[in-house]
Amino acid sequence: MSPLDRRTDVEIVEVAPRDGFQPIGPFIETATKIDFVRRLHAAGLRRIEIGSFVSASAVPQMADTPAVLHGVRGEGTLLPQLLVPTERRGHDALAAGSPMVAYVLSVSAAHNRNNVRRTPTESAADYERFASSVPAGTPLRLSLATTFDCPFDGRVEAADVMALLERLVPARPDAEICLCDTTGRAVPDQVRRVFGEAMARFADVRHWAMHGHDTYGLGLANIFAAYEEGVRVFDAAAGGLGGCPFAPGATGNTASEDVAWMFERMGVSTGIDIEALRTVAEDAARLPGAQAGGRVRDALRSRPELCGS
Amino acid sequence: MSPLDRRTDVEIVEVAPRDGFQPIGPFIETATKIDFVRRLHAAGLRRIEIGSFVSASAVPQMADTPAVLHGVRGEGTLLPQLLVPTERRGHDALAAGSPMVAYVLSVSAAHNRNNVRRTPTESAADYERFASSVPAGTPLRLSLATTFDCPFDGRVEAADVMALLERLVPARPDAEICLCDTTGRAVPDQVRRVFGEAMARFADVRHWAMHGHDTYGLGLANIFAAYEEGVRVFDAAAGGLGGCPFAPGATGNTASEDVAWMFERMGVSTGIDIEALRTVAEDAARLPGAQAGGRVRDALRSRPELCGS
Repeated sequence: MSPLDRRTDVEIVEVAPRDGFQPIGPFIETATKIDFVRRLHAAGLRRIEIGSFVSASAVPQMADTPAVLHGVRGEGTLLPQLLVPTERRGHDALAAGSPMVAYVLSVSAAHNRNNVRRTPTESAADYERFASSVPAGTPLRLSLATTFDCPFDGRVEAADVMALLERLVPARPDAEICLCDTTGRAVPDQVRRVFGEAMARFADVRHWAMHGHDTYGLGLANIFAAYEEGVRVFDAAAGGLGGCPFAPGATGNTASEDVAWMFERMGVSTGIDIEALRTVAEDAARLPGAQAGGRVRDALRSRPELCGS
Repeated sequence: MSPLDRRTDVEIVEVAPRDGFQPIGPFIETATKIDFVRRLHAAGLRRIEIGSFVSASAVPQMADTPAVLHGVRGEGTLLPQLLVPTERRGHDALAAGSPMVAYVLSVSAAHNRNNVRRTPTESAADYERFASSVPAGTPLRLSLATTFDCPFDGRVEAADVMALLERLVPARPDAEICLCDTTGRAVPDQVRRVFGEAMARFADVRHWAMHGHDTYGLGLANIFAAYEEGVRVFDAAAGGLGGCPFAPGATGNTASEDVAWMFERMGVSTGIDIEALRTVAEDAARLPGAQAGGRVRDALRSRPELCGS
């Protein structure tokens, strides 16, 4: 069984420690980060993106990722995942002992330039080198940022996504492919269309995932749409953390507790103890500088009543 | 063309002046209510539930509905809709000049008892009397509260919904049937299943609508699911207003601006000027005592940025 194989009907990949924490200004102590990862794991989240190997000057909150990785070692069934934007960082992460990495590149040129100062073609060549040098058996994710929409160039063409996959899938056919709605501006019919096309064209890819943001309230709608197409792995962040320190009002990932609640209510197992997760999410939402989202925390705090219809 | 026929791909029925305002404690002046209705109409909302004919002691905020109705008369293409829970209130509303009424009864016994102190069977007989006495040509909606879930009894069986429709549809086959997720605990696969079954069994019903709440963040996901089944009329409230004065944490209807943004982004016309609606929604969210929801207001206030993937 590969570490990428699911143990439950769907797998929620917890990304609060990376995507959720990174925009938070005040530095979160390493011990606090480790504690969050442990509690999230105890609530049933098996795979957790615990940090990233990126420029510490660009994203200071992630500077202690090696120490967090070290601190959560031996946590039962935990599968820590680290985000990396280059071959070099990828090898650094593996050398530091990360059992898996997620390599991110952007479909849109403007966004990739802004993120890693490279063209998507340069990043694609870099990924090919990296993918072929990662030992067989080491789980790998390829994350395509701005699959649906770019903060600079707007709507992204599905043809551009397919062309990139055409090139990158053969480099590592057993990698998990994660299509990312970076801006939260994907809409559910688009999510269905793009995943449907990709999954039909690359039928040999066994692992598909979706990463979304709830900026426009579409987090769960997009996840449901992807689920209908057969996607079974979804990124989410406890407390709906996220946002961006440079953009007031930009908001975070879909809240893990909202995703878990939806699926469990649908009778789809997630392996998550929602009450335990809610407690961690409450604490995450209260971190100084955090921008929280999601609805289930509030809903479960009181009993909904009727007011008409 | 019937007033129930759509002029756009989908129709958003604005319910903030009724479902959104009614839980607000401080009385909203009649002139303010009228102003909101006018501005919502100017933003492109054609049908607006402007109030209800119910017990003024139970829902004091709705005591001035006759005055609001009078005040919005002659507003261009506006179709005011009034909620009523009994035949008597229905005739009162029509006598007061309301061009259409929405008759609400609950599928679940516990909820119907709590709402109107009657069994669903008693309400069904009352609706039959009312429906057969409303003049032909007067548009009518039948709203089934707690179609999916009851705040007292939990999950509602689809068989109970079908049995009620079996009895009530023949009383007025040209009525619009609105299935209501009163608690916000419907999940999208359930929404698809129940609408799918109802629309197949009652294929002669031309007008179907959905009323939802965003309490668990599922507002848009459920609307998308219903849309996929062929539903084209959706209730929503500007600013995501709602909640309940007796239940802190209970939250409101899906925000009209979120629904409009999703559909317009999908290329599905709503007839709504989102920027105009956003401005009204901001004001609605700022009403003293209001509990607001939705994400699009915040998202449109600033430009979303990338923070990783």
